[in-house]
Amino acid sequence: MSLAGLLGQIHDADAVVAAETLQRLDRLTKPQGSLGRLEELAVQYCAITGERKPAVPRAMVVTFAADHGVVEEGVSAYPRDVTAQMVLNFLRGGAGVNVLARHADVEVRVVDIGVAHDFGPIPGLLHRKLMMGTRNMLRAPAMDRTTAEEAIRIGIELATDAVQQGFGLIGTGEMGIGNTTASAAIAAVMTGVMVKEATGLGTGIDEQGLARKISVIERSLATHHPDPCDALDVLSKVGGLEIAGMAGVMLGSAAARVPVVLDGFIAGAAALIAVGLQPRCRQYMIASHRSVERGHRVLLDSLQLKPLFDLDLRLGEGTGACLGIGLVRAAIKILTEMATFDEAGVSGRNA
Amino acid sequence: MSLAGLLGQIHDADAVVAAETLQRLDRLTKPQGSLGRLEELAVQYCAITGERKPAVPRAMVVTFAADHGVVEEGVSAYPRDVTAQMVLNFLRGGAGVNVLARHADVEVRVVDIGVAHDFGPIPGLLHRKLMMGTRNMLRAPAMDRTTAEEAIRIGIELATDAVQQGFGLIGTGEMGIGNTTASAAIAAVMTGVMVKEATGLGTGIDEQGLARKISVIERSLATHHPDPCDALDVLSKVGGLEIAGMAGVMLGSAAARVPVVLDGFIAGAAALIAVGLQPRCRQYMIASHRSVERGHRVLLDSLQLKPLFDLDLRLGEGTGACLGIGLVRAAIKILTEMATFDEAGVSGRNA
Repeated sequence: MSLAGLLGQIHDADAVVAAETLQRLDRLTKPQGSLGRLEELAVQYCAITGERKPAVPRAMVVTFAADHGVVEEGVSAYPRDVTAQMVLNFLRGGAGVNVLARHADVEVRVVDIGVAHDFGPIPGLLHRKLMMGTRNMLRAPAMDRTTAEEAIRIGIELATDAVQQGFGLIGTGEMGIGNTTASAAIAAVMTGVMVKEATGLGTGIDEQGLARKISVIERSLATHHPDPCDALDVLSKVGGLEIAGMAGVMLGSAAARVPVVLDGFIAGAAALIAVGLQPRCRQYMIASHRSVERGHRVLLDSLQLKPLFDLDLRLGEGTGACLGIGLVRAAIKILTEMATFDEAGVSGRNA
Repeated sequence: MSLAGLLGQIHDADAVVAAETLQRLDRLTKPQGSLGRLEELAVQYCAITGERKPAVPRAMVVTFAADHGVVEEGVSAYPRDVTAQMVLNFLRGGAGVNVLARHADVEVRVVDIGVAHDFGPIPGLLHRKLMMGTRNMLRAPAMDRTTAEEAIRIGIELATDAVQQGFGLIGTGEMGIGNTTASAAIAAVMTGVMVKEATGLGTGIDEQGLARKISVIERSLATHHPDPCDALDVLSKVGGLEIAGMAGVMLGSAAARVPVVLDGFIAGAAALIAVGLQPRCRQYMIASHRSVERGHRVLLDSLQLKPLFDLDLRLGEGTGACLGIGLVRAAIKILTEMATFDEAGVSGRNA
């Protein structure tokens, strides 16, 4: 199916089911609304899936790895090799996302969509490499427009496959040294804020490094003039392959009526791209957390997404998404396992 | 053991183990500090328990139920009978805390420490009733000082028993129609803020009800003059039996070097009492969430506790504590299950 065809398959979430879910929540043995965001999550989940008494869904985090040519400008605290090294760490189960995925009963799929390293045949890794990392956006567009579209398509396919395999909740994760630079560039273009408002310390550069990072982004934008009304243009000129893959997962999940749980700043940049392509897909998004990264607040405000928690995370990989998935499941259980006032013989409010 | 004796057994958490835990966290495959509050939790857990490689602890929430004579002043949106009805709902597993406890693998113990209802012999309920609810604080001190001390002792014993049974993480919960009134009174006295700054809508009274509630608390404080330097005086004059029990659990957990996860506003009021009796027990407290209830922020600031999340909860029962326990366990797993840079062959920061 064409990308345009898929975008046409993303419909509004079901307002009738949302209203019915809220009615049921109000009959449960608690003051109305007293479980706050958990109740909102239950309503959103049912509106997305159309289910009135949902089962607890199987969940997956898709972690895309890719490299960024812009790293040669000295925008990151860590060397580029770390991307490939961390992919191997993911496959051995030793990374943060593995630990939190086991904790939350979430399956992790690791996708090489553009790491600058030849892994050879290696069990567990999904080989979808499109380039050996993007080009340095300061010198050339990060990727061709056709490559950006192909990377999105890969994400769509992964989401579609996951839904067919019975997963009902999908989180997005990433690994890519340099990818807060690409994400800040996307955030600045798509939200219209100044570059310095969208750019943070990433994995931990110093103030001098931050000034360099901001300058690199500003000059890249001045060179390429990405068009904020054309998300594919932005993605291809200053984006990243893992960001494109995540945007694809978001679109594919929305088309399949499956909620997608966003991780942190990079996932938010991908969400801007996905929403730029199809605004309705925002209804399918759950923002797990607000990261420490400077631009994340601006980005979430622009998406009109309110994060579930703020634990000062800034690791990425899908770590926050795993914790968010746990809360979505808690919300579903509240809806389906709590007794009603009638069932429990509990009195209602004073007249 | 006397209460004074137990208070003397609460020592500072272990700063050496805290420093060693932080060193280990910094060797794990992530930018230093990038798991934010989870890393802080791991450090606190190890400093409390003295363990360097802790196992994932069994967890319990102790939910105390009691009634409040002040309900006859019209301070609550729900009738007093709901306390007893909800106890039965807890025992059948249909309440919010039951659902979230199952979700987070937490055992719930339900304690009648002062419900105005004779349950008779009933399986699963811990019978520790000291009074058929407190007296109406507007007319008389809520309870005698000896009763307050006895209620604290019950909490201490329950915590001590739980630790002996192998539980390594304890959450506090409560049910008591009218208990936001008692908690607001405690918060106002112990923190020194105006009553209106400490008083919120509870289960959902209207503005007129709120004005009445504030007036009842102000008049009660003017009548009894509770002494903020004497936590037992405050507790007995304007407190509640479940609040006393929770304070006891906090003290008993601290003496046993077991972390205690606070639920919402009522638990915070109990924490003020516990800290009033022994300031060091604050080091053993983990605030799960900030509730919607107006006084909770003031109270947490006074305790110098930073809540882990803010999900607009206001149900109590131990619901927030269950979610907080999940995060503590996630933090422990991060510490003990993640690979180090050396183990994973991942490069460190650029020189």
